[in-house]
Amino acid sequence: MSNFFSLNNIIKLMDRKINKDNLKVFCISAMEKVGMSIEDAEITADVLVTTDLFGIYTHGTNNLRNYIKKIKAGGIDPKAIPQIIAEGENWTLLDSGSAMGMVESYKAMAMAIAKAKVSTFGFVGVKNGSHFGAAGYYANMAASQDLIGIAMSNADPSMTVPGSRGAIIGNNPFAYAVPTGKDETIFLDIAMSSVSGLKVIQSKKNGKKIPNNWIVDRDGLPTTDASVFIDKGGWLQPMAEHKGYGLALLVEVITAVLTGAGVTKEAKSWLNELSSNCQTGHAFIAINIDTIMPINLFKERIDNLINEIHNSPKAKNSDRIYLPGEIEWKKYEHAIKNGMRLPIYVIESLQELAVDLGLKINYIF
Amino acid sequence: MSNFFSLNNIIKLMDRKINKDNLKVFCISAMEKVGMSIEDAEITADVLVTTDLFGIYTHGTNNLRNYIKKIKAGGIDPKAIPQIIAEGENWTLLDSGSAMGMVESYKAMAMAIAKAKVSTFGFVGVKNGSHFGAAGYYANMAASQDLIGIAMSNADPSMTVPGSRGAIIGNNPFAYAVPTGKDETIFLDIAMSSVSGLKVIQSKKNGKKIPNNWIVDRDGLPTTDASVFIDKGGWLQPMAEHKGYGLALLVEVITAVLTGAGVTKEAKSWLNELSSNCQTGHAFIAINIDTIMPINLFKERIDNLINEIHNSPKAKNSDRIYLPGEIEWKKYEHAIKNGMRLPIYVIESLQELAVDLGLKINYIF
Repeated sequence: MSNFFSLNNIIKLMDRKINKDNLKVFCISAMEKVGMSIEDAEITADVLVTTDLFGIYTHGTNNLRNYIKKIKAGGIDPKAIPQIIAEGENWTLLDSGSAMGMVESYKAMAMAIAKAKVSTFGFVGVKNGSHFGAAGYYANMAASQDLIGIAMSNADPSMTVPGSRGAIIGNNPFAYAVPTGKDETIFLDIAMSSVSGLKVIQSKKNGKKIPNNWIVDRDGLPTTDASVFIDKGGWLQPMAEHKGYGLALLVEVITAVLTGAGVTKEAKSWLNELSSNCQTGHAFIAINIDTIMPINLFKERIDNLINEIHNSPKAKNSDRIYLPGEIEWKKYEHAIKNGMRLPIYVIESLQELAVDLGLKINYIF
Repeated sequence: MSNFFSLNNIIKLMDRKINKDNLKVFCISAMEKVGMSIEDAEITADVLVTTDLFGIYTHGTNNLRNYIKKIKAGGIDPKAIPQIIAEGENWTLLDSGSAMGMVESYKAMAMAIAKAKVSTFGFVGVKNGSHFGAAGYYANMAASQDLIGIAMSNADPSMTVPGSRGAIIGNNPFAYAVPTGKDETIFLDIAMSSVSGLKVIQSKKNGKKIPNNWIVDRDGLPTTDASVFIDKGGWLQPMAEHKGYGLALLVEVITAVLTGAGVTKEAKSWLNELSSNCQTGHAFIAINIDTIMPINLFKERIDNLINEIHNSPKAKNSDRIYLPGEIEWKKYEHAIKNGMRLPIYVIESLQELAVDLGLKINYIF
């Protein structure tokens, strides 16, 4: 370990304001090193860095090191070009061939947008897909072009369901984005579990008790003991019990059963099973607002709704009501203006990636 | 009050096994009495009685008395014929003219199904709509024809959102249904609140403490005191906090902002504001599976998923894992076979309706 990796140095680096373009250049150079085309590397870098800019560090450049490990182990094919296997006026089915998740998803949503512009609705399903990171990016692709965007994916099982023990179904991410007139997009990017596995792992590290709706123990019963998570048979609980279960199942049906992708256990972990293809399924939906309602009228109606919510009576000790995505957009704008501060685990991951590949990294800090 | 209404008699009636066809005949005769066509009355009766057969008594024939009060007060137009105001290959926008909610919704989903059969996706939005009862019925219309069905609606605000106090948005119902090979449909019918208002009202009556994620008090803070609900400024909490808020907002955007229906406070209560049109919006989506994946293959894949979930390890003290809708289908089949037992509040409501309209009712018990 060089001095660059000392804790003192990392803590110093956490104070550096990182320029997004330098971070992108580093990510692109890393992906080119393992055989990805510059075009695909640029797409991936934009997805990951934008996710960091939104403050969703768990799904951004932090994960590039693992994606590249997976490429080296054969679990992701950096050269795969997603193929159209069936198509209609308003839908397309893609076989991704285990391409990089960001590449297949960017291309799929771009196709859904193109279909929607002609046919009002556009649906693109993806089979043989890989972990696609933060779903919100793809939903926002549509909203930035004045369409409503929806993005979803299944994942390897990490969630119990009512009456079961063990991991039965993935916590299947779902995102949507809606264009507005005066503000940035409204967007929501959630998983169907009560909380993310990372949040449980953090509580496990801290030895803290957790609320009893986060996980179940090995018997499938709610527990406040984070230490049983995964190793001792503990798994995530669905959000709002049967409601989160039911919605996760809908995502599973649309992204995986309908597309021919791996269903539940057939989908493999992007993180732990490096040499396996993820075999996950995704679905991307775009709705061309303007054919249904003139876009300016729609935006006026959305802006009125935003104003109404912003101006609603506040709860005690609350001074603001946020729209979905508003906090992320504030972080984004702050980071674009002032540069971005990355948390320690992201800096470590990027540095380790630089060492793995023999790349220079100092210039991004 | 005749003896027919005595508590003893009602309790006796609760033991009677009610035949669904007699119940339908009674409902139809009530609606004809207030000017509805027999065709529309039959549609409405089928929706309400089927909802009772599923055991969802809060959304079935119990509400007919109030719908008819609303017709008499001018809030629902029993003769309205929903009009197509705009249309494309795979979508339709309807102005319902405040028709009975079940009539406009049945017709809208039938149109979405017809569109989907030709164009893979079918979307029908409804403005100037009325309370549509249980969303699951319409989703199941699609699934019974081998399509995936989705039904949703906005509603007058009853839910707070993170950081607010008071009612900001409706608890916006959402349902989906999926065809299977060997079993009945998978279907989920939920609202975006933690629990239904009725459940809070029951706890209020019983004087029971409630979990602190059900409602907020007048300050917008979580409370375990059900007595503050509505009268003292208490309102429902969204399920899973910001996740339920975000999903309710998506339903609001698709059903109301996009269709031109009443948004948030513009939507009026079907229950309390009798002379007001509800002005709610609905959206119905049908997806023709067979154009994307051969329907038999899809059903085989769904059946495998069902088997896998059924055969998963059970939680301690659990002997069964249910698919969404499975409990409702079991109740349905039992009621079809053995007749149906209605809860006391439904029997009371039907009897009061009979008195309101001077109809015979004894024959249904």
